[in-house]
Amino acid sequence: MISLNQKEQEIAAKIKKLKDEAGTHSPSIFTVAEKIPELKIHVDACFLSNPYATELFFTYLKRDLVDSRKMRDVLEFYPSQNNVIAEILSECLNVNPKSIFIGNGAIEIIQAVIHNFTKNKIIVNIPTFSSYYEFVKDGIEILFNPLEKGENYRLNIEKYIQIVKKEKPDTIVIINPNNPDGGYVKYSDIKYLLANLTEVETVIIDESFIHFAYEDETYEMKSATELVKDYPNLIVIKSMSKDFGIAGVRAGYAVMDSKRVAYLLKNGFLWNSSGLAEYFFRLYVHDTFLKEYEKVRIKYIQETQLFFKELSTIPQIQLYPGLANFGLIELKDGSTSTDFVSKLLIGHGIYTRNCADKIGLEGQFVRIASRNKDENALIINSIKICFE
Amino acid sequence: MISLNQKEQEIAAKIKKLKDEAGTHSPSIFTVAEKIPELKIHVDACFLSNPYATELFFTYLKRDLVDSRKMRDVLEFYPSQNNVIAEILSECLNVNPKSIFIGNGAIEIIQAVIHNFTKNKIIVNIPTFSSYYEFVKDGIEILFNPLEKGENYRLNIEKYIQIVKKEKPDTIVIINPNNPDGGYVKYSDIKYLLANLTEVETVIIDESFIHFAYEDETYEMKSATELVKDYPNLIVIKSMSKDFGIAGVRAGYAVMDSKRVAYLLKNGFLWNSSGLAEYFFRLYVHDTFLKEYEKVRIKYIQETQLFFKELSTIPQIQLYPGLANFGLIELKDGSTSTDFVSKLLIGHGIYTRNCADKIGLEGQFVRIASRNKDENALIINSIKICFE
Repeated sequence: MISLNQKEQEIAAKIKKLKDEAGTHSPSIFTVAEKIPELKIHVDACFLSNPYATELFFTYLKRDLVDSRKMRDVLEFYPSQNNVIAEILSECLNVNPKSIFIGNGAIEIIQAVIHNFTKNKIIVNIPTFSSYYEFVKDGIEILFNPLEKGENYRLNIEKYIQIVKKEKPDTIVIINPNNPDGGYVKYSDIKYLLANLTEVETVIIDESFIHFAYEDETYEMKSATELVKDYPNLIVIKSMSKDFGIAGVRAGYAVMDSKRVAYLLKNGFLWNSSGLAEYFFRLYVHDTFLKEYEKVRIKYIQETQLFFKELSTIPQIQLYPGLANFGLIELKDGSTSTDFVSKLLIGHGIYTRNCADKIGLEGQFVRIASRNKDENALIINSIKICFE
Repeated sequence: MISLNQKEQEIAAKIKKLKDEAGTHSPSIFTVAEKIPELKIHVDACFLSNPYATELFFTYLKRDLVDSRKMRDVLEFYPSQNNVIAEILSECLNVNPKSIFIGNGAIEIIQAVIHNFTKNKIIVNIPTFSSYYEFVKDGIEILFNPLEKGENYRLNIEKYIQIVKKEKPDTIVIINPNNPDGGYVKYSDIKYLLANLTEVETVIIDESFIHFAYEDETYEMKSATELVKDYPNLIVIKSMSKDFGIAGVRAGYAVMDSKRVAYLLKNGFLWNSSGLAEYFFRLYVHDTFLKEYEKVRIKYIQETQLFFKELSTIPQIQLYPGLANFGLIELKDGSTSTDFVSKLLIGHGIYTRNCADKIGLEGQFVRIASRNKDENALIINSIKICFE
C-alpha cells in the first residue's frame, strides 16, 4: 500500500489546494509548475492528447507561419467570422456549412448548447465530464444516470432508452467514448438510440475522443456527424484539443440543425476563433495534412492499446476497458487515489488525474493518459516502483 | 466627384457581396484577399490598431516563444482558467481579482454582459459599434439615442442624463472614445455621469480605444476601471486588439462587481483564453514591456494627430474631431462612400471602412484608421489622387 513521508505529505497538501481552487478540473501543468516549483514534472499524463499529432501540427506551423513570417498576420489582424470558418469545414465534414458552429474549444460549445437549448430537464450519465452538469443554469433539473460498476461503466442501450422514455428530459448527453472511463458506444448502437429517441428535443453526442476509438482492425473511426441530416434533434460536439493535441489553440466545432446555428449566431459568437484556430481549421481540411495525421492517429492507437495491456498486468490495479486515449484504473491494494497520484507526481514527475471528485465512481480511481512510447514506458515503470 | 469605371464597378460589386455576407462588420482582410485575388491590399486602414505595439509584442513573442521553443507548450497544453488569469491582472489594474472577468476578445464579454445582465431595456447611443444592439436578445427593448451631427456626435452629458432618467433603461452603454466618430468623454464627466445615474442597474463603459485618448499634453490616459469600487453598477469592458494590435490573439477583459463575475463563472467561461492570450496577459503586467509600450503608445498618438491634421486639409472631406485612432470623415463633394472606399481599395490597395450601414450617420461617411507613418502618408496621398 502506498504511503507518503512527511515531505511528500507537505507537497501533497499544496497539490490538493491547487486542485480545490480549480474546481472539478485539474489545474494546468503550468499552474502546478509555477505554484509548486519544487516539483519536477516530466510527463503530463493528465492531459488527454495525441503527442504525435501535436508534433505533426507543429511541423506545419513552423513551416507555414514561423519560418515564413506569416505569424504576425495571424496574430495581428481579425480572424474570419464563425460562418466563414464553417464554410471551410463543410466539405471535409460533408455537411451543410449552415449546420456547423465553430467554438473557442468544445467547452464554449457545451456552454452555448446547454444555456440555449436545455429548457427543463437534462439526463447526464455518471461518471462524466463535469461541465455537462455544472454549466446547467439554476432551475433546470439534472438527473444523474449512474453507469454501473458491475457493467464496467458501459452504457446499457436498452436500459438507457427506457430511462429516457420514462423521465422525459428535453436534453440527453452521451460522451463517446466516455470520459473518464473510455466506454465506447458502437455506431450501430448510436443509430439505434437516435431512431428510438426522436422525441427528445436535444441529443448531445460529444465525440471529443472519437479519433481514438475504432470498430475493427482497420482502425476506421465512425462519427455520428452526418446523422444530423436525419436527426434534427442531434448535436455532435467535437473538441480538437485531444486528437490534435492543441488544447492551447482552443478549437472545436459542433454539427447541429441549421436553425440552431442561426439562433446562436443571431446574438453572438462572431469572432470566437483566434487567428491560430483559423489556421488550424484551414489545415484540418488539407489533404496532405490529413493523410499524415491518419498515420499518427493509428500509430498512437496501437501504442495506447499496448500501454493498456501493460497497465493491466500490474496486480495492484484494475484497468477498466475503454477505447479512448486514457485508462481508468482502480487501486485494489488499499491505497488511496490521492496518495497514488501524489507519489507519482512527487517521486516520478508524472502528473495524472485523481478521480476522487468524480461523481459516479465508487472506489479509488485514477485516470492516466497515454503519451508517447517512451513516456508510457516511464509511466508503467514508475507505477510499479510506487507499489514496491 | 469620384466615379468608377466598368472594371472597378465589377470589383466593387464583389466587395459589396462580401460586406453583405459579413453583416454589419467588415470582412477580414484575409477574406477579402482570398475571395478577390485581383486586389492588391497594401494598407489595412479598416483595422483599428497601433502597428508599433504589434511590433513590440512580436519582438517579445519571438524571443520568449519562437526562439526558445516554448511555443509548443503554449499551443499544446491547456491554458489557465479564467480566475487564474484574473489574478495575474489584478495588481496591474489595481482591482480585486474577483472583479475581473477575462474574455476571448471584448466581443465575448459584450455578449456575456448583454445576455446575462440586460433584462428589459437598453439605451444605445448611435452611431455605435453594432454588437451593442445586435447581441440584445428578442423581447428586450432597444432605444437608440442619436448623437447629433450638429454637435459633431459628441455625447451631451446633461441631455443624456435627462434621457436616461426619463426612459428608465436597466442598461446603458457608453463607448469611450466612441466608435466610429472617436468622441471622447472626459474622466470628470464620466464620474459626474456615474454619480447621477446610480439607479441604472448596468452602466457599460467600453474603453477599447481609451489608450489613444488623453486629457492634456502629458498624454496620460484616464480609465474608469477603478470606479467599479464605488459604483457596483459599472462594467468597464476592454479589448486588447486595438491598443496592442493583436486582434488575432483574441484577448479582452472586463472589470465589474465581483457578484457578477461569480455569476458568469458559475455556469461557464472556463478555458476561454488561448495559450497565446494567456502569454499576452502575462506580458501585459510585465514592467519592462509596459514601459516600452507606453513609448509606442505616445508615439502613435502623436502620429495619429498629425494624420488627422493632414486629413483635415483635404477640401473634399470633413474630418470629425475625435480622440481615437481613426478618423471619421464625411465626403462633401457629392461622392458616395461606396465609390470612395472602392476607389481607394481597387486603385491604391487601401482598405477603409464604409460607414453606409452605420445607423445614426446621415451622409456619406468613411472611417479611416491611422497606421504607421509611411502608411498614413500613403493614405493621405492616395485620397488626394482619388479626388483629382
